[in-house]
Amino acid sequence: MSEASIRALQDLLGQHGLQGFLIPRCDEYQNEYVPAADERLAWLTGFTGSAGLAAITTRGSALFVDGRYTLQAEQQIAEQPLALENLSPPDIANWLCDTLNEGDTLGFDPRLHTEPGLAPLKKRLQECGIALQPTENNLVDSLWIDRPETPAGAARPHPMCFTGEDATSKRQRIAQLIAAKNQDALWLPNPEVCAWLFNIRGDDIPHLPVALSMGALYSDGSATLYLADNAISDTLRQHLGAEVELVTEKSDLFKAAERRHLQQVWTDPSLTNCWTLQALRNLEIKLLLERDPITSAKACKNSVELEGSRAAHIRDGAALCEFLAELPEAVKGTKFGELEAVQLLRSKREQREGFTDDSFDSISGYRGNGAIVHYRVTPESSLSMAPEGIYLIDSGGQYPDGTTDVTRTVALGPVPSQARDHFTRVLKGHIAIATLKFPVGTCGEQIDALARRALWDAGLDYAHGTGHGVGSFLSVHEGPQRIGKANTNVALEAGMIVSNEPGFYLTGEYGIRIENLILAKQAENYPGFLEFETLTLAPIDRQLVEPLLLSDSELGWLNDYHQKVRETLLPLVNEPTREWLQHATLPIAAE
Amino acid sequence: MSEASIRALQDLLGQHGLQGFLIPRCDEYQNEYVPAADERLAWLTGFTGSAGLAAITTRGSALFVDGRYTLQAEQQIAEQPLALENLSPPDIANWLCDTLNEGDTLGFDPRLHTEPGLAPLKKRLQECGIALQPTENNLVDSLWIDRPETPAGAARPHPMCFTGEDATSKRQRIAQLIAAKNQDALWLPNPEVCAWLFNIRGDDIPHLPVALSMGALYSDGSATLYLADNAISDTLRQHLGAEVELVTEKSDLFKAAERRHLQQVWTDPSLTNCWTLQALRNLEIKLLLERDPITSAKACKNSVELEGSRAAHIRDGAALCEFLAELPEAVKGTKFGELEAVQLLRSKREQREGFTDDSFDSISGYRGNGAIVHYRVTPESSLSMAPEGIYLIDSGGQYPDGTTDVTRTVALGPVPSQARDHFTRVLKGHIAIATLKFPVGTCGEQIDALARRALWDAGLDYAHGTGHGVGSFLSVHEGPQRIGKANTNVALEAGMIVSNEPGFYLTGEYGIRIENLILAKQAENYPGFLEFETLTLAPIDRQLVEPLLLSDSELGWLNDYHQKVRETLLPLVNEPTREWLQHATLPIAAE
Repeated sequence: MSEASIRALQDLLGQHGLQGFLIPRCDEYQNEYVPAADERLAWLTGFTGSAGLAAITTRGSALFVDGRYTLQAEQQIAEQPLALENLSPPDIANWLCDTLNEGDTLGFDPRLHTEPGLAPLKKRLQECGIALQPTENNLVDSLWIDRPETPAGAARPHPMCFTGEDATSKRQRIAQLIAAKNQDALWLPNPEVCAWLFNIRGDDIPHLPVALSMGALYSDGSATLYLADNAISDTLRQHLGAEVELVTEKSDLFKAAERRHLQQVWTDPSLTNCWTLQALRNLEIKLLLERDPITSAKACKNSVELEGSRAAHIRDGAALCEFLAELPEAVKGTKFGELEAVQLLRSKREQREGFTDDSFDSISGYRGNGAIVHYRVTPESSLSMAPEGIYLIDSGGQYPDGTTDVTRTVALGPVPSQARDHFTRVLKGHIAIATLKFPVGTCGEQIDALARRALWDAGLDYAHGTGHGVGSFLSVHEGPQRIGKANTNVALEAGMIVSNEPGFYLTGEYGIRIENLILAKQAENYPGFLEFETLTLAPIDRQLVEPLLLSDSELGWLNDYHQKVRETLLPLVNEPTREWLQHATLPIAAE
Repeated sequence: MSEASIRALQDLLGQHGLQGFLIPRCDEYQNEYVPAADERLAWLTGFTGSAGLAAITTRGSALFVDGRYTLQAEQQIAEQPLALENLSPPDIANWLCDTLNEGDTLGFDPRLHTEPGLAPLKKRLQECGIALQPTENNLVDSLWIDRPETPAGAARPHPMCFTGEDATSKRQRIAQLIAAKNQDALWLPNPEVCAWLFNIRGDDIPHLPVALSMGALYSDGSATLYLADNAISDTLRQHLGAEVELVTEKSDLFKAAERRHLQQVWTDPSLTNCWTLQALRNLEIKLLLERDPITSAKACKNSVELEGSRAAHIRDGAALCEFLAELPEAVKGTKFGELEAVQLLRSKREQREGFTDDSFDSISGYRGNGAIVHYRVTPESSLSMAPEGIYLIDSGGQYPDGTTDVTRTVALGPVPSQARDHFTRVLKGHIAIATLKFPVGTCGEQIDALARRALWDAGLDYAHGTGHGVGSFLSVHEGPQRIGKANTNVALEAGMIVSNEPGFYLTGEYGIRIENLILAKQAENYPGFLEFETLTLAPIDRQLVEPLLLSDSELGWLNDYHQKVRETLLPLVNEPTREWLQHATLPIAAE
């Protein structure tokens, strides 16, 4: 984490015949959160953001970050010989073409990139006569003396009462899909896919309750699963059963492929790193590069998972209410800021049954910080809070029965009418999605505008998606479905959980977002149609609502929702919160 | 048009070493409407629908049509040795794979197909071991003794007062796009593209006012244009100027390419037939296969074209009002049916300045016929009309200043409340689009759901798009923009005209569609936002509106629209229509 490291890496380039090397913030599983052992970017550059890429070359070096991290990166790399650039594929390619010379070779760790991810860069570099070359090992690792161990916590069975389907059944039905595509096997590229398929969980990664793992499922339903030696117990062996061969070296996965004479393997190129694809091709295996079927299967929750999610949302809602109820008093103190708010909310969740972790780093944004969409509070950035202004808290919990993600925006003092107007437009968009009925086959991109229309009417919009998929005690950001402007070509299906989170951000002033998780399901009495059930339970701040902007049916939705929140959570919250909840869920009269 | 023709074609296959031949309903320009000389499918099979494909093979033959033509095709090919199959690429491919044997060769006329159009079929046939082979000439033509001449009417200059930009300017700005892509030329694949670029029009094709033409525009702004000898006058030569070389043989286009040593040519593979692509490749020209830039340029109308469109819509609206005003009396007669309605409306349009043709075959559907989305009335199908039931008329006109397309649904007698409910939901969708403000960059597929939401609320939908682009005295169906469920990835831009035509169809009972043309333009006072201006002027039948289902703002839109229709058209219609128009545009009170 010093200029010396970067200089050492530059020296190393020459020994490998390279003029440059890429260091993404990534691990070999393409996880959203990565183990400490994979924080190479932070170690090398000092930049600790959740997304970024460094290009270290003999001709100059740069750190690429997106808009949300520009300020933070400026501070963190101030002492480094690094230019700060924009993290967009064309900008990265242009910078590299400008910096490197024709004939140069740029190295990359093939474990940390996917082929579709590299393709646009590769094309542009080719045009400039620059070669991209995979390296045997990551050059950073040879310099990083005190690199942490890769985590290898125990993998544990995730019981039927939470999964609703045993692993044998899952293996059998995915095996049928493999056979239908005339493939010998499906590559299991990451811990999420393995966790779902084998009904196992672990604690190797922040916020994502999985054990680091990888494997292959064969067309007969048997499988080979890689887990670290330490992760394996007798209980786990028993749970996995005889059809699952356990290996403790990743290389054994490829040996198994060879031994079984696999000819054709289904691999999802967007989930599988370049190194793995090459290793399979080296075995002369033909690859079917299509979307992983487990991604689609795990997106559609079964009835047990849905009951679990509803239960987790009730406990999570109770915790959130206790936090929201204490907030007005807390902000009157002198030592209460964005960071203390995160700690208070965490303490409330920790009191709830089964809570294991936050499902992501909470976004706790007071006043202008709330307008930074992906704001992550640090001790340096944390604003002290007072009984005035607007506060946004986006957070979630991991429970064995479900994963939650909720955003509430609250007024800590008097609210100007403009903020009520903005909040109510966001609320109208939220209600438009919550109350929607839509035909089977409809994709998220087709309904996204419904969430934006009330803002568009005022010439306003928000620069993020409206909804992302959510896992079942798995990742809080899970594909393949999405609600947003970008094309997914993925139909929303019964059993899918997505977030419903329109927002509006007034730079320097406040951020507004109202996020509930919603479940797509068959619409009652409307054959061929789906509708949403709202899972999240917590009051929407009535002080921020302008009733004149709501139609009767929108007001009806809000009052009905608040009634459900009140009736469900009242028995579950502490005494002071009960009074607050009564008041926070009072019906609003039509004006 | 007999069994003998099909037998003769089968005999011919053997002489060419083929086991089958494809006959699409298509011409070499991929026109939507084709000249009589290209009605090969109708000549061979007797089927006269606007879309279809015959596969004649030595092992059996079939006609492929889509759902709207099944009944008609059954009657028209009753005497023929043809199976009737569904016109969908997978069904066609499956039928061919089932009918032909491995090792067989299927011929096709490369002028009548595009590479992207054939690609899925080619892939599937390859899997079955069946080869696709282009033929030198169309096998049908050698059998079709009395085949009509290809039309070669005069091409005439389309004056600046309608185009707003002279052809030199158009050539120069498109040439800049060609140069920016490092291309030597842009292939001009069809009459529409040539008509726009050179500001010429003609009468060679039904409903599309163009002269059959093809050409190439070079990166210096000069061009070569093919037109039939008969099409060329001194006036036209003068209009085109010295920079446009005229040729009267298509082969001379390729000679010009050779003479000019073209190395790289931009060609849109979805507009250019296989024969042309191959001819260019035979000259060792490298092809840039990207979307034609003229398609995008002509989609965005300039201010003169927009003023023209507004003026044409006023005249067209006056004609439609006179028709609608006479309809209630007309249907009391005994000899008035769907066909007579089309004739009456046509006679009203013919009285309006500049009218040259219907812009497409009118859809005139009474009662259950209205529920057939692409219904085309024939003397056999034409229902007699009476003062009861619901009638749908979808029609448009070609005027030198603009192209129109409008649908109105009218009650000819008392209306059941269910029909009012359906109509009003369609109207709510129509208003949702008409009143929309949306950010620059928004694509049609992102706003389509707004037109459907009120129907979705009742578990209903319609199985067609919400809007298509419309040309300026050009095709009534013009790309690249669209409003629909399918992804276009094409942003709606200022100057684009699209239709706004949600509908609902109750099989056997009635069809409902409300269609206006709307223009996308900068939203006043909302930087970065676009809004729509409604161009079409004609009353929306108040008898079909259920005011209780409309919000105050929706009712406000309808009353404002009717006020504008009344004020604009009242001075332009005949005396009896004036009274009708007064009544048809009365405000509806909020209830």
